[in-house]
Amino acid sequence: MKDFIIIGHKAVTAPFSLNDLPGAAGRMDILCRCVNAALFLSHDLRRDVRVYLVLKGEPAPPKLICFNGAEVRYLSPDERSAASLIKKALEKNAQDFWTESMPGVSIRKGELGDLLSELNRKITYLREDGEDVRGKSFEEPLFVLGDHLGVTDDEEKLIEAYKNEIVSVGPISLHADHCIVILHNEMDRLEKHI
Amino acid sequence: MKDFIIIGHKAVTAPFSLNDLPGAAGRMDILCRCVNAALFLSHDLRRDVRVYLVLKGEPAPPKLICFNGAEVRYLSPDERSAASLIKKALEKNAQDFWTESMPGVSIRKGELGDLLSELNRKITYLREDGEDVRGKSFEEPLFVLGDHLGVTDDEEKLIEAYKNEIVSVGPISLHADHCIVILHNEMDRLEKHI
Repeated sequence: MKDFIIIGHKAVTAPFSLNDLPGAAGRMDILCRCVNAALFLSHDLRRDVRVYLVLKGEPAPPKLICFNGAEVRYLSPDERSAASLIKKALEKNAQDFWTESMPGVSIRKGELGDLLSELNRKITYLREDGEDVRGKSFEEPLFVLGDHLGVTDDEEKLIEAYKNEIVSVGPISLHADHCIVILHNEMDRLEKHI
Repeated sequence: MKDFIIIGHKAVTAPFSLNDLPGAAGRMDILCRCVNAALFLSHDLRRDVRVYLVLKGEPAPPKLICFNGAEVRYLSPDERSAASLIKKALEKNAQDFWTESMPGVSIRKGELGDLLSELNRKITYLREDGEDVRGKSFEEPLFVLGDHLGVTDDEEKLIEAYKNEIVSVGPISLHADHCIVILHNEMDRLEKHI
């Protein structure tokens, strides 16, 4: 299983309009593109991938949403489709445990620290000054990526509490979803030995 | 200059609703994601990139739209933002020559053959059975990618009329926008010698 955590510092925690993902929904467009990048193949889904979104925006933060590639349905590649499933999850009365809102999509109350504790795995943390992804090997990887605001010092401390390595995907700073595409390409090549 | 051509076989050629890019607008979402993948850096735009969209859907095909990274403004990373600029271009009365609809966005009547003839360059054609992108070098590259329907036999014939090479980005079939991200990563690495 390959897991991706993306932190949405402004992503709202109540149902939102699908017509203004960057503005009123707190850069929800970034998280939607990350869901796409993590889960979609050309005519299939990556069934061995889970995407965890950490929503830290108003009015009821923090919340966690999980897309499980093995079970998700009704997901199309466009941003609005992922946003629609996130919105449906936010319509649920989130508890301290996971509740499925749609097939393969779940929500719970909780912050990054809760999620890292639950997964309790070595973390591969994406940062521009990390070591080059090429040449790395990945076994049951857990990637953590920030949104347009990066990762805060407090979040870095949470990450540092686990075994971790800091990895970079290339020489130029990229959007989180673009980083995910490159990570997948590297893992695809490793798995196919090319 | 790095140029990308993406062929939208169903992409509509008249103004459309921004609320249904995959359906009524003929998989316009694919073209919007390609614009994002080709032009966006983390907190900047790739100024040395142009994206050409070939719109082949009803009611008035074919039309060509160009996003020029050196000049484009009012473009945000979300699909709806690119779609809004495409829609504005389609509101123009397209001629047989380029007309600017917004800064850095132009439209003309024309098909793939017209565009290839105008650019008149060696083509790097993305196809699953191509040679691995790693190890290639790129000078003023012109990439051609298909949408969810790939590239038709007739389009392949147009491509074959030019000097060309067939390249693959990895072992698994990916969406066009994901291919563009990987192509950029390869070129970024070549330019920075890493």
